[in-house]
Amino acid sequence: MSLLVVGSVALDSVKTPHGEIQEGLGGSATYFSIAAGCFTKVRLVAVVGEDFPERHVAFLRSRGVDLRGLCRTKGKTFRWKGSYGEDMNEAKTLKTELNVFETFRPALPPAYKDTSFVFLANIDPDLQRGVVDQITDPHLVACDTMNYWISSKPRALKKTLSRVDVLFLNEGEARQLAGGSNLLTAARQLLAMGPSTVVIKRGEYGALLFKKDSIFWAPAYPLETVRDPTGAGDSFAGGFMGYLSRQKGITETRLRRALIYGSIMASFNVEDFSLNRLRKTKREDIERRFRAFRMLVRF
Amino acid sequence: MSLLVVGSVALDSVKTPHGEIQEGLGGSATYFSIAAGCFTKVRLVAVVGEDFPERHVAFLRSRGVDLRGLCRTKGKTFRWKGSYGEDMNEAKTLKTELNVFETFRPALPPAYKDTSFVFLANIDPDLQRGVVDQITDPHLVACDTMNYWISSKPRALKKTLSRVDVLFLNEGEARQLAGGSNLLTAARQLLAMGPSTVVIKRGEYGALLFKKDSIFWAPAYPLETVRDPTGAGDSFAGGFMGYLSRQKGITETRLRRALIYGSIMASFNVEDFSLNRLRKTKREDIERRFRAFRMLVRF
Repeated sequence: MSLLVVGSVALDSVKTPHGEIQEGLGGSATYFSIAAGCFTKVRLVAVVGEDFPERHVAFLRSRGVDLRGLCRTKGKTFRWKGSYGEDMNEAKTLKTELNVFETFRPALPPAYKDTSFVFLANIDPDLQRGVVDQITDPHLVACDTMNYWISSKPRALKKTLSRVDVLFLNEGEARQLAGGSNLLTAARQLLAMGPSTVVIKRGEYGALLFKKDSIFWAPAYPLETVRDPTGAGDSFAGGFMGYLSRQKGITETRLRRALIYGSIMASFNVEDFSLNRLRKTKREDIERRFRAFRMLVRF
Repeated sequence: MSLLVVGSVALDSVKTPHGEIQEGLGGSATYFSIAAGCFTKVRLVAVVGEDFPERHVAFLRSRGVDLRGLCRTKGKTFRWKGSYGEDMNEAKTLKTELNVFETFRPALPPAYKDTSFVFLANIDPDLQRGVVDQITDPHLVACDTMNYWISSKPRALKKTLSRVDVLFLNEGEARQLAGGSNLLTAARQLLAMGPSTVVIKRGEYGALLFKKDSIFWAPAYPLETVRDPTGAGDSFAGGFMGYLSRQKGITETRLRRALIYGSIMASFNVEDFSLNRLRKTKREDIERRFRAFRMLVRF
């Protein structure tokens, strides 16, 4: 079934203990599309400026990404500059230039309105809801968010969550949004806000999938070198949604496997800067890692 | 096969956000014995003072613990006082009175010298090695350690590790002992120090079991309330060693299941202060939780 992502396409400058990159291809919609693109064709809605390199457009197109929703507009492309310390768990933002992203109002091309699977990357919750409004009959709506929206627009975010089936967020955000320190209690409160599935990401500690009556615990793939964690969350969502959108119906088992595919895509992504590792990732690499995940938890 | 623990028996005063206890039964050998005691009879070597309450001795005996190695000596019992903050991950030590534990030199009763499975709880690595020397032909030796010994007696600790089959330690200790931040690399370095199995405990994030050619990832049982984490590591080791000592031979699968039983015993232990939850834990509770662990990771 069709899959849509609405988010950012950006140029990222990132420094980690393992190296650095200047104005590499980045952005939530980019990471999501390339990760999900290993499973299915992705419809993308985002905005770039006049300076956005044509080679990046060509790359996205070469991976089968539907770019009818990519708007090129007057001004400069969104730029983010950040760095990671030794523990790699949290990015330090050094500079954010929103540029054309500042006035981004996602308008779906008519051909996208019949989309079945929708991923609302981390943008203003009012804009996220505006996207849902434009879709005729969505089958599954997923969204990401961040501490900034949780503290600045909690009411708008909760309105959006009432329209969402799957909520992705990290551990700290889950605690912040639910207002408590126990993760189980937090998950229960988040489920009460609307989503039937809550995915809590914990970086190198894996991820949890909560439903009303079940919990699934996915490990993270043990890696000797994490070069650049940028985009891990969006690659995760891309693997999850890409796999799920290709299944006939959503079952508990498929949701669990989707979480594993999300973990796999995130594990590839962090092995190199920008999209460098995902570019080279083949379907057989993904399946090999899937088998490794099985071995990791078998007892 | 027979199982021995050498460690502390103590009186703990603990305060957490969920309550507090004054001079409750504690100590590494105690937690280990009661957890392992759900699987097998445990031989204990430890020291207490003249003030050690007889009811605690009676309790240990009632759980089948072999107390021929419990030495009662002139002076006061080891006391520890600590508190935990909201996140419950690290204890803050408020007071340590070693008392009779200060001059503890573990001497095994002759009847213990044929022990097959040995757990050296967290004591001076020279004393740990002295215990191994007293055992005729151990089948499997496991040990725990802590940041204090890693920084103050690294050479003695490494000598001990060369005699050990299974090393238990937490994530921070693993990084400290191996001298690096990546856990995979650290585990490989720890394996090179002697143990054929390294168990890295990560609290609410679960535990990892490393062997030369494999990794096993155990989840932690998701709990809504963690009342008191004191003794979690020793209960963990108790479940692990108790289960393993009852198996016919050590295989990869049995080591993995041992890790799950360790996680289970730790999960019960933290649900209440002192031994209060483990006291009530029945074999069927353990098996129910074992099945829950399976469901938690199935995909």
